[in-house]
Amino acid sequence: MTECFAFALLKTDGGARLGEIVTPRGRIRTPAFMPVGTAASVKALYTDQLEAAGTDIVLANTYHLMLRPGAERVARLGGLHRFMCWKGPIITDSGGFQVMSLARLRTLSDTGVTFQSHIDGSTHTLTPERAVAIQCLLGSDIQMQLDECIALPATAQETRVAVDRSLAWAERCKAEFARQQDQGAARPGQALFGIVQGGLDPDLRRRAADALVTLDLKGYAIGGLAVGETQQAMLDTLELTARRLPAGKPRYLMGVGTPIDLIESVARGADMFDCVIPTRSGRHGLAFTWAGKVNLKNARHAEDQGPLDPASTCPAALDYSRAYLHHLVKSGELLGAMLVSWANIAFYQQLMDAMRAAIAEGRFAAWAAATKAGLGDTRRDP
Amino acid sequence: MTECFAFALLKTDGGARLGEIVTPRGRIRTPAFMPVGTAASVKALYTDQLEAAGTDIVLANTYHLMLRPGAERVARLGGLHRFMCWKGPIITDSGGFQVMSLARLRTLSDTGVTFQSHIDGSTHTLTPERAVAIQCLLGSDIQMQLDECIALPATAQETRVAVDRSLAWAERCKAEFARQQDQGAARPGQALFGIVQGGLDPDLRRRAADALVTLDLKGYAIGGLAVGETQQAMLDTLELTARRLPAGKPRYLMGVGTPIDLIESVARGADMFDCVIPTRSGRHGLAFTWAGKVNLKNARHAEDQGPLDPASTCPAALDYSRAYLHHLVKSGELLGAMLVSWANIAFYQQLMDAMRAAIAEGRFAAWAAATKAGLGDTRRDP
Repeated sequence: MTECFAFALLKTDGGARLGEIVTPRGRIRTPAFMPVGTAASVKALYTDQLEAAGTDIVLANTYHLMLRPGAERVARLGGLHRFMCWKGPIITDSGGFQVMSLARLRTLSDTGVTFQSHIDGSTHTLTPERAVAIQCLLGSDIQMQLDECIALPATAQETRVAVDRSLAWAERCKAEFARQQDQGAARPGQALFGIVQGGLDPDLRRRAADALVTLDLKGYAIGGLAVGETQQAMLDTLELTARRLPAGKPRYLMGVGTPIDLIESVARGADMFDCVIPTRSGRHGLAFTWAGKVNLKNARHAEDQGPLDPASTCPAALDYSRAYLHHLVKSGELLGAMLVSWANIAFYQQLMDAMRAAIAEGRFAAWAAATKAGLGDTRRDP
Repeated sequence: MTECFAFALLKTDGGARLGEIVTPRGRIRTPAFMPVGTAASVKALYTDQLEAAGTDIVLANTYHLMLRPGAERVARLGGLHRFMCWKGPIITDSGGFQVMSLARLRTLSDTGVTFQSHIDGSTHTLTPERAVAIQCLLGSDIQMQLDECIALPATAQETRVAVDRSLAWAERCKAEFARQQDQGAARPGQALFGIVQGGLDPDLRRRAADALVTLDLKGYAIGGLAVGETQQAMLDTLELTARRLPAGKPRYLMGVGTPIDLIESVARGADMFDCVIPTRSGRHGLAFTWAGKVNLKNARHAEDQGPLDPASTCPAALDYSRAYLHHLVKSGELLGAMLVSWANIAFYQQLMDAMRAAIAEGRFAAWAAATKAGLGDTRRDP
């Protein structure tokens, strides 16, 4: 296995890109969907289910893990991979987004952010340097710079301040990451990605992208989207930002999205995605299938002996009747959350696999049109 | 596969019995532990995990299933086995115990019991005939007579009334079961068990056992225990009751128990057990191991890299560190409930397997003494 981090762009088809990231812990086929393992567990799934579903990489949250069980503890326990029994690549976010959405009593300055834990009220500080140090302790294969995430809508001034601060923090993260590598705390083959902020302002997005690119990081994320804006605004911002990013680096659209979001975003040049939608929906009985969304709470499934999704290859979608899944969800049985979360992650990975195949064969646009029609128009539940 | 229900007593060792129940859906090795699948799911476990753990038979609850999804609906969906994707034997209780412990506004008479659902307040009636009809609709392999369960302590008069009513109901259940068999609604090889009640009164227990035995049922349960009395009172009552039951029929001690309870009860001639302890404890981070109970919430596991139970053969007890399990349980992650429930069911089945091996080799008493010491004395958490 290589000790390098490398991205190969294998083929383009319109804006869509087929690629491969090679890491010391394994290959990541792109476009890639990264299931979210917030607290070192992709909720309600076993890691062998993730793997069998075609998952190459999982995401874990720096914010959650720094609070519990703590980054130093994870390091003493041999790192995050060993801790959560996942051998493949792991990406960790920097905590910036969760600090803004979950933590209390935040104090933000150019230095960093001080906040109270949502778990026990204890006070913590996250600086660009500490965010990198924590991610080195966790031992993730891809780490993200600390950035400032703002809620939308935001004023032009708020957006500009957040962009400038995020750029300054990117430089500091890069310097700290280099220092950690020199000290052996970050291993060869581990990578640091930058995050383009800028809200919905095209000029700010372009300026942020251009500035980050000069730092020559291993990959670039587009952050601050999927936070309440329209899908069209998100896609437009993605498209104009992606154009400013180098073709030879992976592009990660953070926190996205629905199956349709993923298809539209791949069409606009995004390579990597993470989102809680498949697992969170799974815990609430909402399933994603090749024929669209299925709300298993709906009474019309109560005597449906058919499987959740005959077009799936996942046992959860094939071996159990919709009637049984309906019963489990209505009864609040844990097995309902387990099965629907599993089926959803499997669907997402099958969707990515189909996208990769369509790009490889130069038929992405036709595939996307047919698939979107199938996902949106038939058997769709209210 | 046979179309008959048959019990073979293979060996005795002191009071302990090694046996085998043959049903059209498979063999049940006794002493047997039957995981509880209340609402057609053994909580947080996949059926293939149950099977791999050595589970021959699972229990489902008539009370829960008659309320949701409804017995007629389960029948229309092809029966309980198909519904819950479990191919092996299933035992159903009659609902009597749950009506007493869960339902509201009960009205009890010799005819039966009318009650309000704890789910939606709807009114339902359970008679001996309806209890049998429901269990035929569910299609379980072993069904239980409707009985009257009383809470302990109870007056002599209350206990006597409940015994007489339960005996009368046993006769009516037997008649209804025969009628269902004549009509083809109960298939050959399905069995009806009677339930001995009588609280802690030796005379009543003996009388109830003797009367039930004259009905020549396929098996006999000892009910109304493990409801708050001391372990010694339970074991004494079991012992005197078991002595009155025919050697050639299986004996099912309902709702029992802890690992020590199981060992002591097998020593006194019980063959079958069901209990929510392994799964309920699992959901609360309490694990059963060959070295005793382990409370995974305890901070002393926070950096323990060792597995839950090196003496187990279950992946949940071997492949994950106690530190990770501690973290999952503390964080309320579903995977924590999944892993500990799985490990607990596996431990219970390994315990039964060890008991069967010890009886087969005529060393049950020595095995029991050594095992009880191991379970009770080392690594026990508060």
